[in-house]
Amino acid sequence: MRMSRYFLPVLKETPREAQIVSHRLMLQAGLIKQASAGIYSWLPMGYKILRRIEQIVHEEQAKAGHLAMLMPTIQSADLWRESGRYDAYGDEMLRIKDRGGRDMLFTPTAEELVTDIFRAHVNSYKDLPLTLYQIQWKFRDETRPRFGVMRGREFLMKDGYNFDLTQEDALHAYNRHLVTYLRTYERMGLQAIPMRADSGPIGGEDTHEFLVLAETGESEVFYDSQITDLTFGDRDIDFTDKAACAAVLEEFTSRYARTDETHDEAVFAQVPEERRRTARGIEVGQIFYFGTKYSDAMGATVQGPDGKSVPVHMGSHGIGVSRLLGAIIEASHDDKGIIWPEGVTPFHVGIVNLRQGDGETDAACEDLYAKLKARGLDPLYDDRDERAGAKFGTMDLIGLPWRITVGPRGLKSGVVELTSRRTGESEEIAPEEAIARIAAIYDGI
Amino acid sequence: MRMSRYFLPVLKETPREAQIVSHRLMLQAGLIKQASAGIYSWLPMGYKILRRIEQIVHEEQAKAGHLAMLMPTIQSADLWRESGRYDAYGDEMLRIKDRGGRDMLFTPTAEELVTDIFRAHVNSYKDLPLTLYQIQWKFRDETRPRFGVMRGREFLMKDGYNFDLTQEDALHAYNRHLVTYLRTYERMGLQAIPMRADSGPIGGEDTHEFLVLAETGESEVFYDSQITDLTFGDRDIDFTDKAACAAVLEEFTSRYARTDETHDEAVFAQVPEERRRTARGIEVGQIFYFGTKYSDAMGATVQGPDGKSVPVHMGSHGIGVSRLLGAIIEASHDDKGIIWPEGVTPFHVGIVNLRQGDGETDAACEDLYAKLKARGLDPLYDDRDERAGAKFGTMDLIGLPWRITVGPRGLKSGVVELTSRRTGESEEIAPEEAIARIAAIYDGI
Repeated sequence: MRMSRYFLPVLKETPREAQIVSHRLMLQAGLIKQASAGIYSWLPMGYKILRRIEQIVHEEQAKAGHLAMLMPTIQSADLWRESGRYDAYGDEMLRIKDRGGRDMLFTPTAEELVTDIFRAHVNSYKDLPLTLYQIQWKFRDETRPRFGVMRGREFLMKDGYNFDLTQEDALHAYNRHLVTYLRTYERMGLQAIPMRADSGPIGGEDTHEFLVLAETGESEVFYDSQITDLTFGDRDIDFTDKAACAAVLEEFTSRYARTDETHDEAVFAQVPEERRRTARGIEVGQIFYFGTKYSDAMGATVQGPDGKSVPVHMGSHGIGVSRLLGAIIEASHDDKGIIWPEGVTPFHVGIVNLRQGDGETDAACEDLYAKLKARGLDPLYDDRDERAGAKFGTMDLIGLPWRITVGPRGLKSGVVELTSRRTGESEEIAPEEAIARIAAIYDGI
Repeated sequence: MRMSRYFLPVLKETPREAQIVSHRLMLQAGLIKQASAGIYSWLPMGYKILRRIEQIVHEEQAKAGHLAMLMPTIQSADLWRESGRYDAYGDEMLRIKDRGGRDMLFTPTAEELVTDIFRAHVNSYKDLPLTLYQIQWKFRDETRPRFGVMRGREFLMKDGYNFDLTQEDALHAYNRHLVTYLRTYERMGLQAIPMRADSGPIGGEDTHEFLVLAETGESEVFYDSQITDLTFGDRDIDFTDKAACAAVLEEFTSRYARTDETHDEAVFAQVPEERRRTARGIEVGQIFYFGTKYSDAMGATVQGPDGKSVPVHMGSHGIGVSRLLGAIIEASHDDKGIIWPEGVTPFHVGIVNLRQGDGETDAACEDLYAKLKARGLDPLYDDRDERAGAKFGTMDLIGLPWRITVGPRGLKSGVVELTSRRTGESEEIAPEEAIARIAAIYDGI
């Protein structure tokens, strides 16, 4: 993309409404614009990052055999009356009357509707296990929306639902989701720690939240410092192997890690003192096993191997997709702006032309731009007629992890400058080598 | 995908609520399930097709330099009061009060919000031309939703908005959109004819609807039969070339083609009698030029080259994404089921194992499945323990354009059967040749 043809409205001033750094940087870098309280438009670059995050979520869910589908945002209140949640949910539910006077709502979560789909179409244990998921907009009518996309009212969420014959199978689905979530967050450059949590309006007893440590987190968290040494990495795993998935759960949840909701001082005191940590965390996902809560209430049963009808065991599993942009920025920025991890960056590399209008420099930039694209890479070329300082400022603010700077002086020696946004380190290398280096960095990401 | 692990709830009975064939087939083939009146869930295969259609729309918009973004579904009524449409829109607008008692709405279209984004960020003619678009869920509270996704209440729409300095530039944007739409529909296997139409609540005088001819269409249409001979094909076009885009508009709209809203018997009578046609059509898109209607009302101005502030010229451009599934099925089916065009099929090819459980046949199917996937193709393998007739029935119903049938008798002679869903013609060829043929068919689609 050429910046002259892009819509990237970076702000010069610091937006006053932003209380936390991710909110400020998302507004300044032209990623979002507030439409009304807690509701945002996603400008082209913000939307591009949102799509990259969605893509990672889809890929990791597909590897585990989970099936993508989509449920509507507006649902009838009737199903929610069946589960008892219509009255229980409270004022955060956006309640609507349609023109016929029927009670509708903007869905905050979809246990009822997916259970209704299940009971209409599945009758036999032979069709299990089944996990359906969607990435869809949700609405929670927060009293005090704040912190930009971190605590908005309309937000994009991945929500998945597993249906299993037995508790054992459903707990395997729980463990499988834990594995997919660990991989998903790591691909986005995040360390998200599973912590024992409270189940809230979803229900059930088994639940873990995934938290990213950050000063601006809404939750206070308590953990054993050994947990931050764990990474899932690129190990292979067979998602049908119950023991293998259970071992990952054990590995990542056996050490003390809880939010303030479930924190227990007496248990925490058993962690050696030098490993006890208190910090703040941003919740970016949660997994639940809640057994037959919804299947009992809504009559979602299957015929088991013995011919008897039994309610299915279920769980649900969510990732805050739009919130992740904020969480990644909270975890990865400096005083100049955002630093995108390679896995989610909107463009792979920025090209800065130091002397726009100079024939030779322009030609070198065009050549670089074309060759990067021919390698399947996605560069952002700052071809505006601006001073070098303004171009560097924009690149630092929007946070592409790599930058190639092209100027007449370097070109005389046959070099361009390749700069890492994270370290600030630069190298002067031949344009062909810069292309090869960028290609190698993104190979396999 | 293996059918045994997929969620494809095909119905044996004919759903009674379906009045038109696309609605019936979408329910029977397990693509959608009604959630409430005019509101549908998209089951895995339906969602997959929806995503393929979205992808084609994105690709064709990107070629023209249009920028993808996303606006929220829930908007404040305030902006709609600025344009005067809050009161004018009528009961089809889903009006909502949030918990603070503020007037909100589920957006049926987004001229106001995109104009608000524009006026906040763009001040100079130098930033024009600009076209922003989104693919987002919309809501229109129809009194009598019917025909499945063809006339639902919650529906997925691509809506694009151009901002230009002059009427001439805005009319070029109009022509550019016409070109992208012709390409988009043709890639989906559809002939969609641009017809002079009425602008309705969007406003403006220049507008064309794109209609697919089908008996079940909601509009009566009148046209010169020469128009159905036109195709855009794979010709190259430079989207910055005003004359080239205008020539396409001229080519595709100079012959008589109107909906009942704009039909003029006197003008139609000038078409030679043997070329006059009356039929029914399904609207799948519409383009508008409405000048400064919204920019005047909302103060969206730029500084022109002469330093004077002028309101921008705008248009908007919509494609009914979810409705397209219905339209494609109306145009492409037979009495056995759907016939997906290659451009939108959910899977490239189906594999039918005639003797599941037979070691040699299973091995041949597994080999075929793995090799097709290794070629980047996306096969659906019917590995269920079902009779051949049931497997053929399912494949015909769901409408994959190609099927490979594998049985013990053929394998003895080293052949499988490759069958076209459209023609019903079969050939016995070696498995390797079947793979090569399928790869060649999808090459470049």
